Amino acid sequence: MKEFKPQAKWKKKLHEVIYEADTPAGKSFDILLFILIIISVILVMLESIDEFDEHYHKTLLTLEWIVTIFFTLEYIARLISIKKPLKYVFSFYGIIDFLSTIPLYLSYILAGSQVLLAVRAFRLLRIFRILKLVKFMGEASQLQSALRASRAKIAVFIYVVLILSVIMGTLMYIVEGDDSGFTSIPKSIYWTIVTLTTVGYGDIAPQTNLGQFLATVIMVLGYGIIAVPTGIVTAEFTKNTKDNTSDDDGFLVHVNTQACPSCSVEGHRDDATHCYNCGHPL
Amino acid sequence: MKEFKPQAKWKKKLHEVIYEADTPAGKSFDILLFILIIISVILVMLESIDEFDEHYHKTLLTLEWIVTIFFTLEYIARLISIKKPLKYVFSFYGIIDFLSTIPLYLSYILAGSQVLLAVRAFRLLRIFRILKLVKFMGEASQLQSALRASRAKIAVFIYVVLILSVIMGTLMYIVEGDDSGFTSIPKSIYWTIVTLTTVGYGDIAPQTNLGQFLATVIMVLGYGIIAVPTGIVTAEFTKNTKDNTSDDDGFLVHVNTQACPSCSVEGHRDDATHCYNCGHPL
Amino acid sequence: MKEFKPQAKWKKKLHEVIYEADTPAGKSFDILLFILIIISVILVMLESIDEFDEHYHKTLLTLEWIVTIFFTLEYIARLISIKKPLKYVFSFYGIIDFLSTIPLYLSYILAGSQVLLAVRAFRLLRIFRILKLVKFMGEASQLQSALRASRAKIAVFIYVVLILSVIMGTLMYIVEGDDSGFTSIPKSIYWTIVTLTTVGYGDIAPQTNLGQFLATVIMVLGYGIIAVPTGIVTAEFTKNTKDNTSDDDGFLVHVNTQACPSCSVEGHRDDATHCYNCGHPL
Amino acid sequence: MKEFKPQAKWKKKLHEVIYEADTPAGKSFDILLFILIIISVILVMLESIDEFDEHYHKTLLTLEWIVTIFFTLEYIARLISIKKPLKYVFSFYGIIDFLSTIPLYLSYILAGSQVLLAVRAFRLLRIFRILKLVKFMGEASQLQSALRASRAKIAVFIYVVLILSVIMGTLMYIVEGDDSGFTSIPKSIYWTIVTLTTVGYGDIAPQTNLGQFLATVIMVLGYGIIAVPTGIVTAEFTKNTKDNTSDDDGFLVHVNTQACPSCSVEGHRDDATHCYNCGHPL
Repeated sequence: MKEFKPQAKWKKKLHEVIYEADTPAGKSFDILLFILIIISVILVMLESIDEFDEHYHKTLLTLEWIVTIFFTLEYIARLISIKKPLKYVFSFYGIIDFLSTIPLYLSYILAGSQVLLAVRAFRLLRIFRILKLVKFMGEASQLQSALRASRAKIAVFIYVVLILSVIMGTLMYIVEGDDSGFTSIPKSIYWTIVTLTTVGYGDIAPQTNLGQFLATVIMVLGYGIIAVPTGIVTAEFTKNTKDNTSDDDGFLVHVNTQACPSCSVEGHRDDATHCYNCGHPL
Repeated sequence: MKEFKPQAKWKKKLHEVIYEADTPAGKSFDILLFILIIISVILVMLESIDEFDEHYHKTLLTLEWIVTIFFTLEYIARLISIKKPLKYVFSFYGIIDFLSTIPLYLSYILAGSQVLLAVRAFRLLRIFRILKLVKFMGEASQLQSALRASRAKIAVFIYVVLILSVIMGTLMYIVEGDDSGFTSIPKSIYWTIVTLTTVGYGDIAPQTNLGQFLATVIMVLGYGIIAVPTGIVTAEFTKNTKDNTSDDDGFLVHVNTQACPSCSVEGHRDDATHCYNCGHPL
Repeated sequence: MKEFKPQAKWKKKLHEVIYEADTPAGKSFDILLFILIIISVILVMLESIDEFDEHYHKTLLTLEWIVTIFFTLEYIARLISIKKPLKYVFSFYGIIDFLSTIPLYLSYILAGSQVLLAVRAFRLLRIFRILKLVKFMGEASQLQSALRASRAKIAVFIYVVLILSVIMGTLMYIVEGDDSGFTSIPKSIYWTIVTLTTVGYGDIAPQTNLGQFLATVIMVLGYGIIAVPTGIVTAEFTKNTKDNTSDDDGFLVHVNTQACPSCSVEGHRDDATHCYNCGHPL
Repeated sequence: MKEFKPQAKWKKKLHEVIYEADTPAGKSFDILLFILIIISVILVMLESIDEFDEHYHKTLLTLEWIVTIFFTLEYIARLISIKKPLKYVFSFYGIIDFLSTIPLYLSYILAGSQVLLAVRAFRLLRIFRILKLVKFMGEASQLQSALRASRAKIAVFIYVVLILSVIMGTLMYIVEGDDSGFTSIPKSIYWTIVTLTTVGYGDIAPQTNLGQFLATVIMVLGYGIIAVPTGIVTAEFTKNTKDNTSDDDGFLVHVNTQACPSCSVEGHRDDATHCYNCGHPL
């Protein structure tokens, strides 16, 4: 047992640096990781530009090796420092870390460049890690809670939009026919969504008078119903903003689910030291 | 009368399965119906893709027959199990059920493929049934009531938008003329709506300087007045949300400014009988 | 004086029919006028479609004469029945009524069809009359007051958007140059507004990398700042909805449910010491 | 010291005219400056139109000289009248004033017209000065404070949008390939932002079925998440508006400015017949 202690301590230190963000070392590690992920993402982008890849192929490859080696070391360090490595390996971020590390190794095993293209993009998955790193920004949680609260309503809304698209898309297919690019119902539905969301590429556009009239109806519909998700989310935000500031008019405080040991009453103030009901210390 | 009783029981059971959703059998039936409608919709879509239809014509036809037979049986079952069949036949959903069942039968009676195309799309009407099935989702009713409340205001808004489109469309027709694709006033109004709703296909675009200036005005108008329906619906939602929630997230309670007679701490729950800080009776 | 009385009575009756909407005759007249304006607008549209005009020229002309004669009679009736005809002639609606009546007469005086095109469109000005007819819809006034209240803020917003467009447009002109269609700064500003308002025709699109990057910035800006007019108008609507339960601004004080001991009237100011109805001390 | 006094007075007067807006002279100066900046901006625009520049080159040059000379005099006057000229020279507006004055002088020193194009656009920087001149409009500050309050949330939102664009853009690049115009990941991300913000140029559009399906997902996403910035800003505006009207609900009545003839207290209910303070009949 004596031999293990120092190793455990070293492991614990490593764990602190990698998994925690509130120590100076942990913070520096997170920032370094953030920068490397950004570099890694930019590298994948630059490689996809043919002219750029031709001129700077060697520089790009060198930089890729540096990033890959760091990611490999990080992956190993995460495995060592955690108590249940297997749980990490099969966790969401564990899989992302693994997939974003292997592309360069795979490029020496697999030959076909077609396959590699897709594999290389795995590196981009690391972006999700950034999301996690950024999470400590307080605003994000408020955004998230507003969106979560309006999730069900937005689902109903998208559902109605999709049904509308199917019906209007089929109508447009019948009205316009093959000549205007409405070659099949799925394509026609694609066009309807392009129009309903006010994107409007113009690669397909109605040619007949009736088709243009129907298109007008779809546009005005799309222009009008955008108010619905906006209304939903805004109502949530307004509620949230009110809940937050609600302290200032002094009539609302946060309470918790802690039960009084004496009378089992719940809903004490977070900073309460005694039960508000029976006076028993909490 | 004795002979009829068992039949009535059997009918009653059927009625329960088909028309009610709160028994296990009724729920299963609704889910089965939901899946079949989705399959039926996908079949119509796939048939409209020429390449797909050529390769898998037989498979599609078989699947269509299965769906059609189920819909036929369902239609008959509905007729039998309901007390006033005629009322169902001429109801909104009765007509939809009938129209969405017959296309395949009609394809053997009628010959012209042109006619069949439109007829086949009747099957899509079943989608409205899904809407009905989904209705039990509580959120939909809230959405609906917000929209119903703002119906009159949205009608006035759409009315103003249409008048604006007619005026601006005519102006653009006079300014641009035939060369830029503004060949008639209706087409010019179509273009104005495309622009005002910020869809912007680009199949028609102004070429003259004055035309482009007018287009700019229309765009900024469209960009600005989208705020109006959004404002209307949001105001309704905000009102609704306030009415509904008020407290339901349960972690906030009303406190008052009453000070503890023992420790002078303020912010006790309205129903508190003891100080949360020192336990002194209030 | 005796001779004039009956005439005055007849005039008064005419005035009632034309200018008032709350008698049965006045209402019928308004509805007839509404229908004739709609027909007149549709006629102008149909004439602008060349193929349609060729086939049905005579029918269109006949219908135009009917509409024009009615408008002429209406104009004369308005002149006769009003006390100060000159004031009407030079009023906003007086000018609109005159201009929308003369096109057909002018077509026989003036020859050039080019001029007639613009003149004929004067008929559309009648649409403004519909706006007036519709005014009695209660919702419109609420919409109007919300828009009037946020007028100043929306003006500032449009001002900022225009300055942004000038700056970004000039930048795009310098970056993109003539090859991509950014042939001059005004055209470049036109493109910027097309992009900023998320219309996006695609008749002009950036080709260089830097141009596409700048375009991305403009799009995200446009996508984000649409929130501003929406926020302004929504805030007004929310206030209005709430105010309807109360009223407009600045003249409101808190009242309570305390009843006067003498006359039982409720709704006294919080700081009232005497009943506002009977003067009894509270 | 006696010699300096009059000069100081003259300087002080100049300072008042240039830097202050609440004296008649200062206001006139600001309005003159405003007009000259607008003229200067229009001149830069007109010069960029080749046909216009060819015909009216001399007129434009003359006008440019007039504007430039005024700006030069203004710059010198600002330098003289201020106590710490160096601080002004290196301030934000000092640099803008300098850069917007020199283009015409530079055009005689530098020869290459390419360079001049960019330099001439410096004149547009003066637009920022207009922003400053307009600042006194009260509404702007309310707009600004609402935007500042929601700054952090909007930053998080844009961040999420960018990450989404990178991921969806890479996916589209893999799915669509070079044939449809998705030639590199950056170009593909550009397209994703064009689609997500509902601009939709149509210069690049997906051709494959999977690509069009993905595009549909991006559009619906973009259509939906626009609700987020709108919700954020609206919540801020609603809060602000509420703060302005201050009070909450249901306990408010109209009062008027009528003063009690006995005790001179104001703010009686509209329907009051007695003073709420002394009970004297009104």
